[in-house]
Parts: sequence; C-alpha cells; structure tokens
Amino acid sequence: MQSFADRLYAAIKRLRSPVLVGLDPRVESLPEGLRPQGSSPAEQAAAYDRFCRGVIDVAAPLVPAVKPQAAFFEQLGPAGMNVLAGVIGYAQSKGLLVVLDGKRNDIGSTATAYARGMLGAGGQSVWGADAATVSPYLGDDSLRPFIDVAVERGAGIFVLVKTSNPGGKMLQDLVADGKPLYRHVAEYVERQAVETISQCGYGAVGAVVGATYPEQLAELRAAMPHTTFLVPGFGSQGGTARDVAAAFDSQGRGAVVNNSRGIIFAHAAKPYAERFGSARWQEAVEAATREMIEQLRAVM
Amino acid sequence: MQSFADRLYAAIKRLRSPVLVGLDPRVESLPEGLRPQGSSPAEQAAAYDRFCRGVIDVAAPLVPAVKPQAAFFEQLGPAGMNVLAGVIGYAQSKGLLVVLDGKRNDIGSTATAYARGMLGAGGQSVWGADAATVSPYLGDDSLRPFIDVAVERGAGIFVLVKTSNPGGKMLQDLVADGKPLYRHVAEYVERQAVETISQCGYGAVGAVVGATYPEQLAELRAAMPHTTFLVPGFGSQGGTARDVAAAFDSQGRGAVVNNSRGIIFAHAAKPYAERFGSARWQEAVEAATREMIEQLRAVM
Repeated sequence: MQSFADRLYAAIKRLRSPVLVGLDPRVESLPEGLRPQGSSPAEQAAAYDRFCRGVIDVAAPLVPAVKPQAAFFEQLGPAGMNVLAGVIGYAQSKGLLVVLDGKRNDIGSTATAYARGMLGAGGQSVWGADAATVSPYLGDDSLRPFIDVAVERGAGIFVLVKTSNPGGKMLQDLVADGKPLYRHVAEYVERQAVETISQCGYGAVGAVVGATYPEQLAELRAAMPHTTFLVPGFGSQGGTARDVAAAFDSQGRGAVVNNSRGIIFAHAAKPYAERFGSARWQEAVEAATREMIEQLRAVM
Repeated sequence: MQSFADRLYAAIKRLRSPVLVGLDPRVESLPEGLRPQGSSPAEQAAAYDRFCRGVIDVAAPLVPAVKPQAAFFEQLGPAGMNVLAGVIGYAQSKGLLVVLDGKRNDIGSTATAYARGMLGAGGQSVWGADAATVSPYLGDDSLRPFIDVAVERGAGIFVLVKTSNPGGKMLQDLVADGKPLYRHVAEYVERQAVETISQCGYGAVGAVVGATYPEQLAELRAAMPHTTFLVPGFGSQGGTARDVAAAFDSQGRGAVVNNSRGIIFAHAAKPYAERFGSARWQEAVEAATREMIEQLRAVM
C-alpha cells in the first residue's frame, strides 16, 4: 500500500497544485439555490451534501485534496455525520485525497478508537479519511496511537504545531527550556516524520503551521525537513502566496495550503461576486481555485 | 435557566455522590449476552446502545452524571453517532446530567459550531449535552466560543489542564515564566470560572485534572477555588480515593470523579467477577458504583 505522503506528492506533481480545498459549509453562506428548504438538521445536512458535492465536482480535476471540517457537520447531529461520511466517499470516488479536520485528541485506547474510525481509505475505516488533524496537548501517548494506525493503513496525520489564530500565542509561544512550546511540538513531530518516512522523503506525520506567521513558517520549514505542512490561514485570514512561500522546500514540495471560505464561497466575495454571482457559484469556485493555484505556482 | 454548576452541585448534594460514570463501550468487553450479532458498525452500535442504556438504568439513582466518550461511538461511524445521540437523551430522561467527552477544539466560528452542536440540553442543541470537554492548545480564541455558548445555554465545559496519562508531562509540565504549562492553563481557566460563577460559587468553566498526580491536584485545588474538577484516572489508571481527596473543597464540593471501566465492566474484574459474572453484569455495575461512592464519601 502506498503511503499517504507518496500519494499526496504524486497528486501535487501531476496537478502542479498544492491547494487543499476546505469544505466548511455554513447555512448562511450557501448559494441561494442551495439553501435548505427548512431549518431542521436533516434539511440543513441535505443542503450541505448538495453543496459539498458541487464543490468536489469542480475541485477534483484541479487540486490533490479536500479538507472537510468536522465541526460543521457535527453541529447538525447524526444527520450531519451521515452526510460527512457520504461527502468523504464522494470526494474519493472523484480521485481526491481527504484530510478530515477534527483536531481529535485523547489517550491510549481512546485515541486508538478515534484513529481506527477515521484513518484509512478503501474500507479500512468507517469514516475512510486519508489523513486527519490531531491536537497535541495530551502528549506522546496521545499521538502515538494515531501514528501507529496511520502507518499501518497508509494514512497520515497533521499535528497542530503553530496555528493561524491570534490566540494561538497564548500557549504556543510560551518559552520553555529556551524555545517556544510550538518548537517542542515541532521537534517531536519531525522525529515522528523521520521514523515514518516513505519514498517521497516525507513522513506519515505532518504539521499544521499557519500562513499568518511567515517568519515562523520559514523557521519551522528549516527545522522540519521531513514534515509536510498543512497551512491554514490563506485568504480570509490574511495569508498571501508570498506569506506561504517559505512552507515549500527547494523542489516546491513540503506543503499543502488550505483555503476554505475564499474558494467555496467565492460567489459572494470580490472579485467573483460580480462576475458570477450566486447562480453561477460553481464557476466562482473554479475561478478562485485556479487563481490560488496560479499564485502558489509562482512561489513554489 | 439554572447553571450547569448549580444543577451539578444540587445533584451531588442530593445523592451524596460525586461519581461520574464513564460510558466507554468496547465490543470486546461487553457482557456475553450483549455482544453484537455480527461485526457491522450498525450491529456493534446497537450493542453499545443496549449496554449503555443498561448502565444508565443502574446508575441513574446513584450518581449525578454520566460521561459518554465520543471516540467509541465515532469509531463506528454514523451508526455510532446515532446511538450516541440516543444514549445522551436516554440518560437525561432518567435525570442524569451528561458530560460529552470529545476533547473538541478549534478556532472562532468553527469552535462555535462545535459548541452549538454539543452544549445545551432540552432541545437547545442537537447533541444536547449538559457539558463537554475541550482541549486548550489553540488558546483563548478557541476556548471563548465554548464558554460563551455554555453560559448562554446553562451548560458547562471542562478544559484539559493536567491529564492522567504518563505522556501528559511532555508538554503540560514544561516550565515557562517560572511555572509549568498546566499552571498557565489553570490560571486562565480559573479566571473564566470566576467570570461565569453562579449561585453555588463555581463557574461554568471547569478543569480536567487527573487523579494520578495527587500533589498537583492539591496545588490546583488551592489555585482554582472557583473551578469544578473533572477527575479521571480513578480505578483502572491507579487513582484511589485517598489520591483524589485533595480535589474537594472544605465542604466536599469542587469535583466529580470519573470511573469508566472499573464500573461499566465490573462484571469481568475482581471482586465482582466471582460474585456476579457476565449474566448479572448490572448488579456488578451497581455494586462497583456503590463501593466507589462509599470510598469517596469517606474523603469528601
């Protein structure tokens, strides 16, 4: 079985595109024609299903992967979780890798339960994701079960290291033993990446490093040469192609850059709102995706 | 609407019991008569449903709250999530408070989505939990949305501060600005508890503090006089009543002590296996719960 990293880099090379499209459906932002009929969780979940499949149809030929945000599906209860499972399967049927963004974390056999449920496509797990995001506060015996299951199943994980939100500083920038907390996490993650390395030169363990801190992105790229970065914060949160340039290695690999709202809700924002509007929302998704790809090709 | 803390302490006082029964179903540990018919997620989920309802029937007259572990339900995919929703509703119909243990975390409006989905009983949220656990690595703008929704809906949150697993030390014990990371989190949590205080003298924001570090439990009890502790690690992980004594304030309040495997799988462990066995597993649950209550009454 091919590793997640090998599959990811093969797709990035084939498409010349490191864009990760974030599937963050929100009722109030859906194109008019896709708004739910009523306000029940089942009706909202059905609207998310139609919308996400519509995004996937456009994104599949252009990008290597999508990242469903578990929170928006989970907010709708069991109906939302049913749709999440369907959306993951649909994305994979279109050739996309799926990074399930749930930031899960727990210890021992409980972490193993999360990992077994989420990680592994093609019937290896019930959610069937190719990779998942994980939060590190509980330490190594909370991360190890995710790593073990990921390696066993050709899947990947991305550990939160330096996040894109302003409040991330509260704990992540505290200095202990001469370096910030995020560097402690980074060094642990890089060691795990080295231990799980595959043909492409990157490991099964990646890191979430926000686009909103370009200097730290450069610092961490140097410190973590075998770790793939999942870079959030591009677009809506202020990160630009120039800001994320440092996330790539000298061959233009090493990172996938996420954009959620800036792509999936492009129909409602400049410059696409005027060109396409709500009725032609899929064309707006395509135009926004292509523009982001062009911007990143220039800095990869 | 009465606050979560007020409801919790009223129940603890009425029952003279600070025990939180953890609902951590595992296929391989179920009593023989409750094992699933087959290995499909739907059949396993149906077995979890029967088992958890059986535990709830026994626990409801004895303890204030139950804590379903989201991972074990989520591992079974949408079928498991359907059962989780049913189990939460069933527990509340029997008068129990429900702490949903999902250790969720994210930023801004994504954190709000998790919080709105989970927090709030009686139709205020689709999962309907009275409280939920939250992981703090992402900082204050990741915790604030949970706190805001909790206060608005008379619910609570428990933030991971000092966890019971050996690996928790990796980050939580790193010393920054003269104190360990968990103290930084603890001070933030206590400030939020003070800001969300209700009649009982405790806030809507609580802390997870493991039973396996009695000295730190005492240190944190002193530092966090308005924060309710959710104490894991009792029983299977080695924590004893003596170890958790320091979690209580001078009136015997301030903490709920969780026990999962030691209660729900008591039929398979000493001394209950010989007395009851698999066929009389609910009597084993009752005996183990009563014994834990007696042990804690002696130290409260």
